[in-house]
Amino acid sequence: MRISVCPGSFDPITRGHVNVVKRAAKLFDKIIVLVSDNVVKTPKFTLEERVEMTRLSLRECDNVEVKVLKGLLASYAKEEGACAIIRGLRAVSDFDYEFQMALANKNLNPDIETVFLTASSGRMFISSSLVKQIAKLGGDITGFVPECVAEKIKQRLLGSL
Amino acid sequence: MRISVCPGSFDPITRGHVNVVKRAAKLFDKIIVLVSDNVVKTPKFTLEERVEMTRLSLRECDNVEVKVLKGLLASYAKEEGACAIIRGLRAVSDFDYEFQMALANKNLNPDIETVFLTASSGRMFISSSLVKQIAKLGGDITGFVPECVAEKIKQRLLGSL
Amino acid sequence: MRISVCPGSFDPITRGHVNVVKRAAKLFDKIIVLVSDNVVKTPKFTLEERVEMTRLSLRECDNVEVKVLKGLLASYAKEEGACAIIRGLRAVSDFDYEFQMALANKNLNPDIETVFLTASSGRMFISSSLVKQIAKLGGDITGFVPECVAEKIKQRLLGSL
Amino acid sequence: MRISVCPGSFDPITRGHVNVVKRAAKLFDKIIVLVSDNVVKTPKFTLEERVEMTRLSLRECDNVEVKVLKGLLASYAKEEGACAIIRGLRAVSDFDYEFQMALANKNLNPDIETVFLTASSGRMFISSSLVKQIAKLGGDITGFVPECVAEKIKQRLLGSL
Amino acid sequence: MRISVCPGSFDPITRGHVNVVKRAAKLFDKIIVLVSDNVVKTPKFTLEERVEMTRLSLRECDNVEVKVLKGLLASYAKEEGACAIIRGLRAVSDFDYEFQMALANKNLNPDIETVFLTASSGRMFISSSLVKQIAKLGGDITGFVPECVAEKIKQRLLGSL
Amino acid sequence: MRISVCPGSFDPITRGHVNVVKRAAKLFDKIIVLVSDNVVKTPKFTLEERVEMTRLSLRECDNVEVKVLKGLLASYAKEEGACAIIRGLRAVSDFDYEFQMALANKNLNPDIETVFLTASSGRMFISSSLVKQIAKLGGDITGFVPECVAEKIKQRLLGSL
Repeated sequence: MRISVCPGSFDPITRGHVNVVKRAAKLFDKIIVLVSDNVVKTPKFTLEERVEMTRLSLRECDNVEVKVLKGLLASYAKEEGACAIIRGLRAVSDFDYEFQMALANKNLNPDIETVFLTASSGRMFISSSLVKQIAKLGGDITGFVPECVAEKIKQRLLGSL
Repeated sequence: MRISVCPGSFDPITRGHVNVVKRAAKLFDKIIVLVSDNVVKTPKFTLEERVEMTRLSLRECDNVEVKVLKGLLASYAKEEGACAIIRGLRAVSDFDYEFQMALANKNLNPDIETVFLTASSGRMFISSSLVKQIAKLGGDITGFVPECVAEKIKQRLLGSL
Repeated sequence: MRISVCPGSFDPITRGHVNVVKRAAKLFDKIIVLVSDNVVKTPKFTLEERVEMTRLSLRECDNVEVKVLKGLLASYAKEEGACAIIRGLRAVSDFDYEFQMALANKNLNPDIETVFLTASSGRMFISSSLVKQIAKLGGDITGFVPECVAEKIKQRLLGSL
Repeated sequence: MRISVCPGSFDPITRGHVNVVKRAAKLFDKIIVLVSDNVVKTPKFTLEERVEMTRLSLRECDNVEVKVLKGLLASYAKEEGACAIIRGLRAVSDFDYEFQMALANKNLNPDIETVFLTASSGRMFISSSLVKQIAKLGGDITGFVPECVAEKIKQRLLGSL
Repeated sequence: MRISVCPGSFDPITRGHVNVVKRAAKLFDKIIVLVSDNVVKTPKFTLEERVEMTRLSLRECDNVEVKVLKGLLASYAKEEGACAIIRGLRAVSDFDYEFQMALANKNLNPDIETVFLTASSGRMFISSSLVKQIAKLGGDITGFVPECVAEKIKQRLLGSL
Repeated sequence: MRISVCPGSFDPITRGHVNVVKRAAKLFDKIIVLVSDNVVKTPKFTLEERVEMTRLSLRECDNVEVKVLKGLLASYAKEEGACAIIRGLRAVSDFDYEFQMALANKNLNPDIETVFLTASSGRMFISSSLVKQIAKLGGDITGFVPECVAEKIKQRLLGSL
């Protein structure tokens, strides 16, 4: 059985993320989507919220599991017996960063490959941060995120944000 | 009458910004420069200061108006009846971000086009953040910003910063 | 009246080209699409065929005219009284070349601006050369070029190519 | 069984190519390396020579098969029941072209994904054309291509080239 | 005597930095490595720690000196009589930023050139921030930083971080 | 004495080339400009013409010598005892190619560094091919090439081209 991990902040998960995971799910026997207990940036949604939205958005995919990533991705991937890390590439500036990460992960765990899929349509290019920015300014984000996420964001905005 | 909007933080406006606005002003009947009530980054100058410096720097352009952008650009552009969003492109990394923004704006308001002009000389490449960094370290910024801005920054630095 | 020129080889015109021209046609009073009597590459279609396909593909646009570009774009634009050159940007590698061309044209004719529009959906990314390559190998190109172009290419292929 | 195809001119196969194929071979049950009966460029080696060198360089990989690609990759991949196209990414300029190809192939065959692996060390960056250029000028290419290829190129150079 | 300056945060110095400095040290009579008293980001290590680690990592280079950069690089370079600023280029996104900085420095001090060296192997691509991220998550960073730095980081982590 | 080589087709030499060589000439004791007996592309000017124009354009630089490059750059640089290869970077797409060349040359001759300078003003971005294209179409190229080159091109055009 070939397992791949698909790490990210998913703050929140976008249609672009969903699209990448679904396409990857056809290439491997199992995909473990890893919501990172993000240590660098302060996420807008809590880890629990992010996991929940991610699960809901991917619930129809049989061979996809959503877990929390604690610690180093390269070590985690080893423990899970994963052979690949899945990453979506939207733009050239992504590429530079991703390339560096792939090299680092290859050095930390030579048995794992980073595999890139590209965005397959215009809407897929919209990032989580842009979605949050648009929502905050009152824009319609239903085209960019799964329905359950749009709902969640709307509730959140009625409160504070 | 064809109206274009030209949004930005203008914190502060640079010679590169002025150059882009002036060139755009020949292509459209009216340009509305929109100083964004920036929600993401903490600007160095207040909204009022930024609007004032922008107005001063563009006062000789008859068909250019400077306003404050509150809320979503795509909605605002619709209200004003604008047909285009003007953006200056300096570099490839700009391109990726701008491309994403253009796609998002097209989704939010299909009637508006994002139109890019490129920097036309070396000095135009210098961004607002670099200008502030140079000024803070005591460097001469008169080549990079309009005179009134250079003056304003000098005053500010004599105070605190 | 503001006129813009939109130069290219159009060998053949693609859906991406049509999309850019139509969007530009809303921003200016008149668009002159210039099919270049290409001096560098050997085109697959004759100048007459390229002009014909381009005209057919854009026949529903009232303020768009298709002409042949002989000589230097910057000089031609001056003669026609154009204020802008329209270019579509698909990718970062386009950007570098286009940037250089924009600088050259600005030097040759300081009164003309180069204005960039970006591809607005996945299919728009497919270039004329890729279309020809796909067609040659028997692939279905109807998604990438206007119908009249697809027809023309099919006829051509039944002959030789 | 998951099959992937890995197309290219392989004129000649480099250490970078070998590295990408070997890594891909761990991710899928079978890799079909497709030497394209290249229609665009005039290759330096004949199709037979290219197939032979590619086979020799990959002979130790059990689940890798080398075949000739005639016609359209997207159609061929369908016939073979492949779920993915493997491509190696070396640089940003690769990315633009590859991105366009991936979009085209997705349009031609929605059931196939393009999957990218990145070069994992400096030497992997050297392309087939650069290898040929270096060899022609008398440079040592043993670091860049498999031994059997270096040998073949040397023989060829003693003749004409 | 030709002197070059090599500025950076060095928070901490990586094997990539060491590699660039050593290569530059063969091209010029003296290299002054400038640890910037960084005003923009909050460094993880104090200025003293950064200077110390940088010195230790470069102690075997006779013509390399490590100093603190206070104030503007362009002015400092003038005072030291330097003819060049050395920068390492890892990626395309680096390039855009570096290009802007080079233009700014050229404007501030026309007598100084910015000279770029590129990373020469995979490991050299790993940045200081990525190193810190990996270390924080318990990953092995000995491949990416000089031994003395790895030691220092380990000590720091046993404390708090 | 530190020698650097600066290779190129110089078909013809542009103001951008002259600018890069002059700046490099301040950083090293001697610059050997190497006009390559180009094996890949068919140049517009003969080797002799290219050498002559290059010499004329650089005649005021005391420590610059113009020679013909036959064979491999890395080997030639070794023979001449050069410590660096000078390359001008105009754009991101240059960067990818140059990066690959730098890696190849480092592998072929570990004692030589590739050193990059960037274009320092708009006009410097214009390449030899664009210059030829503009000239052929009757455009004014005096802003992009040294006077002696402009003269030479004009003569050539009065003949055939």
